[in-house]
Amino acid sequence: MGTFATAAKKRGIKIYHLNIGQPDIKAPEAAIDAVRHYHEKLIEYAPSPGIQSYREKLAEYYKTKNIMVEADDIIITTGGSEALSFAFLTCFDKDDELLIPEPFYANYKAFATVADVKFKTVPSYVEDGFALPPIEEFEKIITPRTKAIVVCNPNNPTGYLYTRAELEKVAELCKKHDIFLIADEVYREFVYDGQEHYSVMNLKGVEQNVILLDSVSKRYSACGVRIGAFISKNKEVMASAMKQAQGRLSSPTFGQVFSEAAINTPQSYFDEVVDEYVARRNLVVSRLNKMKGCFCPNPMGAFYTVARLPIDDSDIFCQWLLEEFQYNGETVMFAPATGFYDTPGRGKDEVRISYCLCVEDLAKAMDILEKALEVYPGRKK
Amino acid sequence: MGTFATAAKKRGIKIYHLNIGQPDIKAPEAAIDAVRHYHEKLIEYAPSPGIQSYREKLAEYYKTKNIMVEADDIIITTGGSEALSFAFLTCFDKDDELLIPEPFYANYKAFATVADVKFKTVPSYVEDGFALPPIEEFEKIITPRTKAIVVCNPNNPTGYLYTRAELEKVAELCKKHDIFLIADEVYREFVYDGQEHYSVMNLKGVEQNVILLDSVSKRYSACGVRIGAFISKNKEVMASAMKQAQGRLSSPTFGQVFSEAAINTPQSYFDEVVDEYVARRNLVVSRLNKMKGCFCPNPMGAFYTVARLPIDDSDIFCQWLLEEFQYNGETVMFAPATGFYDTPGRGKDEVRISYCLCVEDLAKAMDILEKALEVYPGRKK
Repeated sequence: MGTFATAAKKRGIKIYHLNIGQPDIKAPEAAIDAVRHYHEKLIEYAPSPGIQSYREKLAEYYKTKNIMVEADDIIITTGGSEALSFAFLTCFDKDDELLIPEPFYANYKAFATVADVKFKTVPSYVEDGFALPPIEEFEKIITPRTKAIVVCNPNNPTGYLYTRAELEKVAELCKKHDIFLIADEVYREFVYDGQEHYSVMNLKGVEQNVILLDSVSKRYSACGVRIGAFISKNKEVMASAMKQAQGRLSSPTFGQVFSEAAINTPQSYFDEVVDEYVARRNLVVSRLNKMKGCFCPNPMGAFYTVARLPIDDSDIFCQWLLEEFQYNGETVMFAPATGFYDTPGRGKDEVRISYCLCVEDLAKAMDILEKALEVYPGRKK
Repeated sequence: MGTFATAAKKRGIKIYHLNIGQPDIKAPEAAIDAVRHYHEKLIEYAPSPGIQSYREKLAEYYKTKNIMVEADDIIITTGGSEALSFAFLTCFDKDDELLIPEPFYANYKAFATVADVKFKTVPSYVEDGFALPPIEEFEKIITPRTKAIVVCNPNNPTGYLYTRAELEKVAELCKKHDIFLIADEVYREFVYDGQEHYSVMNLKGVEQNVILLDSVSKRYSACGVRIGAFISKNKEVMASAMKQAQGRLSSPTFGQVFSEAAINTPQSYFDEVVDEYVARRNLVVSRLNKMKGCFCPNPMGAFYTVARLPIDDSDIFCQWLLEEFQYNGETVMFAPATGFYDTPGRGKDEVRISYCLCVEDLAKAMDILEKALEVYPGRKK
């Protein structure tokens, strides 16, 4: 997609980037200040499982979220990405399988390839707001090689917030077949309309099956610090992940200094962030649903939505927006939803929209989309 | 080994840590200052291949070292560890083989396991100062599954500095069999006695075979920033590594800010560091060679040496030092050399000694070793 964006730039066209999940919110000042006040004479390796004081404070943070974990249940990772990598290398041997609702976060696939894991997807649909597919659909495709179910909650790319009831069904299935439940909860703080996030760590009877993946990237607008966490109550799982952690020596020291200080971020910071994202989501969802032939669910979390558009092919449409369309010298960039599906053909009339821009810019982006859909040559009748 | 160190601490014994490669030298002040002056409001993802201005400055740095690379030949990685991981995932399919002189840096093995690569070692010996084994020994064990030779130069754990002539022999072999030459040159700046480091990037006829792994960890006493580099002139190799880089999104932003500023570190900084390490090495080597039954080569690079001691079993000896021995309330910790060998039985009468402490502490550590060897129950006659 980089080259298409270059084409737009060459045309002198401004692009609204609704394609990436890079928050534009300020990071907590006190956390950046902790890095600014770094006073050591050199930058040592952190311990492989993470700086002890940070692990302890992080455990306290989770307790405030009703997630009862101790420092020893946590390994600090280099971003959520590395936590995912540890999970895959821990849970799977070559040719093992994982089950995941589709659409799913595309980068999972890159790590699965390294770990030689086979993806098996269970379809979810825009018409249902991408709710959990019937649990029978998962069970149908479980084989002796199935070692885990992966959920991302709140979901990237759909913004769907899984309910406690849905997660309990997943847990029951994991327990029945004694497989892992790997949950990516990096958008935990981004939950709207008074809904509550229910963590997999609170599911009963699967305490030894659950692996929680986390990251500070989105929580504190700090994607670049590269700090995440791998969390489990299963001692064997932790021992395996520790071997991975020792192999790569340590996670970034500056990032851990930042993240430890960020634990003290007041609730008011998150309240403001949530208010801002709700306003953004409301604008995007309401505008989309007023456009002829479009449908957008009302996601309860994260800062993404997958919307259905009246288009023939989202890859061609997104490219056309960048290369050929403009409205008042501006255009908009989306992620074609095809990139989040494994099943050929799915996602062709959908795009993922990231609402990480201010309301004013999002309004302009929606104006552009509306005008674009009126003239797009591949518009569906 | 952690638990043995805990045992020593419990006894109230001070430990001199000659077991780890954590430099105690000050990092360049200006580089830490660049992080202290970080002025952005949030911490964004860096581009997957690294911050462009840093890649460009890094290419200039290499040119001052007579290594002619461009920014596009470089992907910034999360430490040298990740560069190694990219190399393994790029060069090898499951069950492919690599050749490496033994002893070798133990963590290579962890990454090889993830990439499902088979290690085949060619022995080098303390009596020869761990010089390159005869090239025929490599050729003997090459098979159609052999995809690369790996060299670490200057070497961890031995401190051996490979000569240009040795490297040219390796290059010739790689060319003949069209296999990769992966070189870890993270100790490039630590070269002593007027010797010169010869980079694999300057070998003729293997430009498309060479992958250079680098790191700022040792160069600037900044192990904790987690910044390294993956470098190759081979476009296919770079494209494969870029896929890995995109999968993990980015390397730490703060670390790249530090590393970019560190490029301006004056030569005087390195001159002082080298003088300090030469004094340390000289002390360790001369003291060891005066101890009865001990032999230590005179390494020309890095800050390690592998020494032969009159002991039955280096694992037991190192454990005994921590758990049972003391001299004036102090003891010393080494890395048993067995951890750097794949061949069963090798390294049993050797330890790796890291000389990352000041001369005064190293002198005390050598006093302790001398006294310990006098009374160690497993001493060889």
